[in-house]
Amino acid sequence: MIDTIDNHKSIRAYKTTPVEPDKLDVILTAATRASNTGNMQAYSIVVTQDTTLREKLWEAHFKQNMVRQAPVHLTFCADFNRFTKWCEQRKADPGYDNFLSFLTGTIDAMLAAQNAAIAAESLGLGICYLGTASWMADKLIEILHLPRLVVPILSMVVGYPDETPELTDRLPVTGIVHYEKYSDYEPSDINRIYCDKEALESTRELLKINGKESLAQIFTDNRYTRTDNRFFSRAFLQTLEAQGFMMNGD
Amino acid sequence: MIDTIDNHKSIRAYKTTPVEPDKLDVILTAATRASNTGNMQAYSIVVTQDTTLREKLWEAHFKQNMVRQAPVHLTFCADFNRFTKWCEQRKADPGYDNFLSFLTGTIDAMLAAQNAAIAAESLGLGICYLGTASWMADKLIEILHLPRLVVPILSMVVGYPDETPELTDRLPVTGIVHYEKYSDYEPSDINRIYCDKEALESTRELLKINGKESLAQIFTDNRYTRTDNRFFSRAFLQTLEAQGFMMNGD
Repeated sequence: MIDTIDNHKSIRAYKTTPVEPDKLDVILTAATRASNTGNMQAYSIVVTQDTTLREKLWEAHFKQNMVRQAPVHLTFCADFNRFTKWCEQRKADPGYDNFLSFLTGTIDAMLAAQNAAIAAESLGLGICYLGTASWMADKLIEILHLPRLVVPILSMVVGYPDETPELTDRLPVTGIVHYEKYSDYEPSDINRIYCDKEALESTRELLKINGKESLAQIFTDNRYTRTDNRFFSRAFLQTLEAQGFMMNGD
Repeated sequence: MIDTIDNHKSIRAYKTTPVEPDKLDVILTAATRASNTGNMQAYSIVVTQDTTLREKLWEAHFKQNMVRQAPVHLTFCADFNRFTKWCEQRKADPGYDNFLSFLTGTIDAMLAAQNAAIAAESLGLGICYLGTASWMADKLIEILHLPRLVVPILSMVVGYPDETPELTDRLPVTGIVHYEKYSDYEPSDINRIYCDKEALESTRELLKINGKESLAQIFTDNRYTRTDNRFFSRAFLQTLEAQGFMMNGD
């Protein structure tokens, strides 16, 4: 069990073998058993297997190969639409059109997603999350017909692995964990926490290919730039507004 | 493995037995193996075991009994402080002071949290999440000394269970999952999805005690009211601003 968790590797190449319906059911059931806020289950999972729709999702997710290959595409959404409709049908006055409710739905959706990931891997399947879901939220809303009070947060492809990658490096646990209170990082802490990552052969190669002085520059200049982050921040906040999650009062 | 996931029950009464340090290490290591955005690991986990600090956290978390009882208190935070400091120390120009980065950190923190939850339960421990973390974010920031670009999202208590609750009801999987695209709910769908929950003996009792017509009214009038949701929405957005996550440009 903990072995499955500790040996997680994101899979970026998939066989054409379909995922058996009973395995998919096990994965989806596992997702719904996750803890969630007040048992409101403020999330939905859209399961897309149709080739034409997956092609559209592939385009939205920056045409990453694995999205086209993997037979199952899951989109985890914050969802207060179902709960709101239930309230309206039961003479109750729902107040879930605000930022806190969006955050609640996001938390619920992510705990469910990670249950699904672990269940899939324990069944011999591979998964890869797609962080592009929040970047391209408006596109996914269009493709998947997501109504008001539903916002996509994170996607995941599932299928049988066609590669056996090495375990990805992680920062030492002591770099992530703080005991009792948060101890802010001194320059020497930063050096200690990042030294193994910076010493990797793959890091050296990246620096050479990109002509950069430091791995950090590859993140700030190429992968996750200020310009992109600000652009997608504005886009996502507009999406929250458009989907009805920003009635925060004053 | 999937049994552990499917049999998850939130534990709200704990023995005084401490959590063994090696078990805690297994839980924290499992957390850090979770998928995360671009391997930036944009989150931190604060592990609080000190009695005086836990007392303060208990007060912040609406004095829920289990918070006082459980020997281990974990606070999962979105964290771009560490990554930003690393960039600054490596002549890279970090642009992570925006809403997208907050969302990224939230996603990373939640996947790590659920790994920790499953690892803990597979070791015979019990857990309970505390959604009050986002409601009381400013208080937790103060108690745990969280710096700029760090925001608490969700807390979890861990310890040996002193109760054996029944499995909590969940909506049917078909109420959560949509195939291919989102199919919006018709009134008959809502009735079907919620009928089992509404028929529970515990629901009938709740209605009697609270003098309400429907279970939905207990959510909208008592548990998660519009007034509270809006209040905590504004508070959380102010916290995001104060912690430096709202430089979205224009």
